[in-house]
Amino acid sequence: MQRAWIICTGTELTLGDVVNSNAQFLAARLAEVGIRTERIIAVPDDLAAIRDSVLAAARCCDVILVSGGLGPTSDDLTRAALAQAVGVPLVTDPAALEHIRAFFEQRGRPMPAASVVQAQLPSGARALPNACGTAPGVALRIGGTPCYALPGVPFELQTMFIEQVLPELRSAGIGHVLLTRYLHCFGAPESEIGARIADLMQPGRNPSVGTRAEAGIVSVRISAFAESPTAADQLLDQTEHELRQRLGTLVFGRQDQSLASVVGEQLAALARTLATAESCTGGLLGELVTSVPGSSRYYLGGLVTYSNALKTGLLAVPEQMLAEHGAVSAEVAEAMAAGARRVLGSDYAVSITGIAGPEGGTQNKPVGLVYIGLCGPDGVGVSEFRFGATSPRSVIRLRAAYSALDLLRRELLRATRSG
Amino acid sequence: MQRAWIICTGTELTLGDVVNSNAQFLAARLAEVGIRTERIIAVPDDLAAIRDSVLAAARCCDVILVSGGLGPTSDDLTRAALAQAVGVPLVTDPAALEHIRAFFEQRGRPMPAASVVQAQLPSGARALPNACGTAPGVALRIGGTPCYALPGVPFELQTMFIEQVLPELRSAGIGHVLLTRYLHCFGAPESEIGARIADLMQPGRNPSVGTRAEAGIVSVRISAFAESPTAADQLLDQTEHELRQRLGTLVFGRQDQSLASVVGEQLAALARTLATAESCTGGLLGELVTSVPGSSRYYLGGLVTYSNALKTGLLAVPEQMLAEHGAVSAEVAEAMAAGARRVLGSDYAVSITGIAGPEGGTQNKPVGLVYIGLCGPDGVGVSEFRFGATSPRSVIRLRAAYSALDLLRRELLRATRSG
Repeated sequence: MQRAWIICTGTELTLGDVVNSNAQFLAARLAEVGIRTERIIAVPDDLAAIRDSVLAAARCCDVILVSGGLGPTSDDLTRAALAQAVGVPLVTDPAALEHIRAFFEQRGRPMPAASVVQAQLPSGARALPNACGTAPGVALRIGGTPCYALPGVPFELQTMFIEQVLPELRSAGIGHVLLTRYLHCFGAPESEIGARIADLMQPGRNPSVGTRAEAGIVSVRISAFAESPTAADQLLDQTEHELRQRLGTLVFGRQDQSLASVVGEQLAALARTLATAESCTGGLLGELVTSVPGSSRYYLGGLVTYSNALKTGLLAVPEQMLAEHGAVSAEVAEAMAAGARRVLGSDYAVSITGIAGPEGGTQNKPVGLVYIGLCGPDGVGVSEFRFGATSPRSVIRLRAAYSALDLLRRELLRATRSG
Repeated sequence: MQRAWIICTGTELTLGDVVNSNAQFLAARLAEVGIRTERIIAVPDDLAAIRDSVLAAARCCDVILVSGGLGPTSDDLTRAALAQAVGVPLVTDPAALEHIRAFFEQRGRPMPAASVVQAQLPSGARALPNACGTAPGVALRIGGTPCYALPGVPFELQTMFIEQVLPELRSAGIGHVLLTRYLHCFGAPESEIGARIADLMQPGRNPSVGTRAEAGIVSVRISAFAESPTAADQLLDQTEHELRQRLGTLVFGRQDQSLASVVGEQLAALARTLATAESCTGGLLGELVTSVPGSSRYYLGGLVTYSNALKTGLLAVPEQMLAEHGAVSAEVAEAMAAGARRVLGSDYAVSITGIAGPEGGTQNKPVGLVYIGLCGPDGVGVSEFRFGATSPRSVIRLRAAYSALDLLRRELLRATRSG
């Protein structure tokens, strides 16, 4: 398997002003053709930093990609850094200069004097024509390792990489692919999921398996290296099957699926409708449900009953119940779900009431305590969750909304199986 | 000026599956305290790659930050890589183990056996407690250079960095400070705001001024470099004053303020209450309003009337009006706002109805068309917005919710001045 290093130049990266989307693009495209990215390095607009990173890369990998620093201003230093790395002077490339001149002519403008430097390449390097801008790319070898320097403007970089660099990498005889698939899980901590599939996560295994977690969603990555996309897909299928055996209904989806989109597919398949009643999440659950295009097929709407008066007025939660058990209680969650189903006329209704913090917690009812009610054709149920008294408000709310979607997902799974 | 290297671990980064937002966060926060990031390196979940990158960093910089690889599964290798880099064994930290045990206990679950490894730190290292998750951070020195390893989950990393690492970096005696202040604007495009303050944005000026825009919010950054926080604050005050003169009521807040928090302060100061009625935003407006701690003082609740039947049933929007003008119309927006104010019994009510796409647009009513109604003690009004037929669903929804908050902000400004 060939190994790549990606070097991204630009002080805007090391100041944290922009996120490094060029690196993500290049790494993803390289993976698709079976080239493993072993380092992504961002450096400021500093000649020595660029030169030293390129030299380090040349000692360790099979192909180097550089982005940025090819513009016409004084902080564009990639051409000079590459020349120093190879130990050659910069010389003007006549064809590249003509390309830049023609670029401005086509737009009815004279070529600015500063643009001349963009045609100065390390002696012996090859210019890569830029279809979308003035900066030509640069192809050369550094100590025998092929190196491609691409412009930093994302659209120019992407076009040049796809149209010019990728064909050269393919024809250099790579012939392998690395395909990745994701399975998304909910309902168990990452450590428990990791324990169930520990043998599949051993280093060196092909496909490789890894996990990451956020707000209760644990995503399992499967990456297969093979001689063809078909062979890679077969390997992915086998491991996915094995993972699904181990993880069962913890797996709620794959690739771009979300809890909200999966629940939407279930509701649409069953021709059932949904309503929501929210307190501490303030509309987040409805927002997630309606983030899915076409959700109007199954989502009728929701009630955000933030005040107790509205819990009583809109959802008919008895005042007596609120006084006796408090708004954050299993009783009220159940009454909210049943009320929403009745008032909104849906098949299913989900309710959330809890303490999102940072204020409002007590000894008995700490911040993070959340009750979720679920009412459907087969009755009503309530689940209690504790998302941690020190968790941020945003995390408690997101975990609550995800947990509500997951409870509904599991209920709809049962309905699908028994129906 | 001190120099930092940031090392981000995770095969998801080098596969290009996710963008490296942790690196951007850390680099931006370091810049704010006058620490220059000289390298950002992303490496796969590979012990040797992490160890070698950390060792290279220790030779070149004054502080090392590592993200990721602190989880409980076998692809979490940062602890072992740090131990190898220093040449010490991993030993269990009893306090860290107790913290993990307590984390699960608080949530009513037994600690999974696999989580024990998260308390194993390089001998001599210090655990950084994790308020939001199980993975403790790790603080140690590598060849004399301080190194902080933080969890990869963004909010855990951010909380730990802000609360624990940043104070240590500050107290380590950085000579100069770079303080940054943000003014947030709404109601004019970035280009217009940029034109009004172009002279303040000249390169080389101290404080430096820059802008960035997202979903209609234009944030103006002011960064002052000075010998002391007091001197920097004075410079910031002067430029903030000048910017406010130029931008007037376009400025809605500063620093951590959001449209929702500012509107909340206005409502609380006026002792007025708010209700919402949403269609295409599906609860997003309520979610933003309630993202502010203490919003129960002024927010009563909301109705998500996604279906037409609920617009009629809950908000008394006449069926005749829906048939004649359609759900996405000025008439319906007005009726929704007036209905929400009446039904929910609030002083103010805001409504949103529109076409978020990608389906549902027509020649006359394209995707991106949104009507926002605002009903208060002085009557009801409607505004029409066009957020672009090719904009993504999520952007249209966010711009609609922000625009609704901004309309309310301006109405409350008038009420405050006239009251």
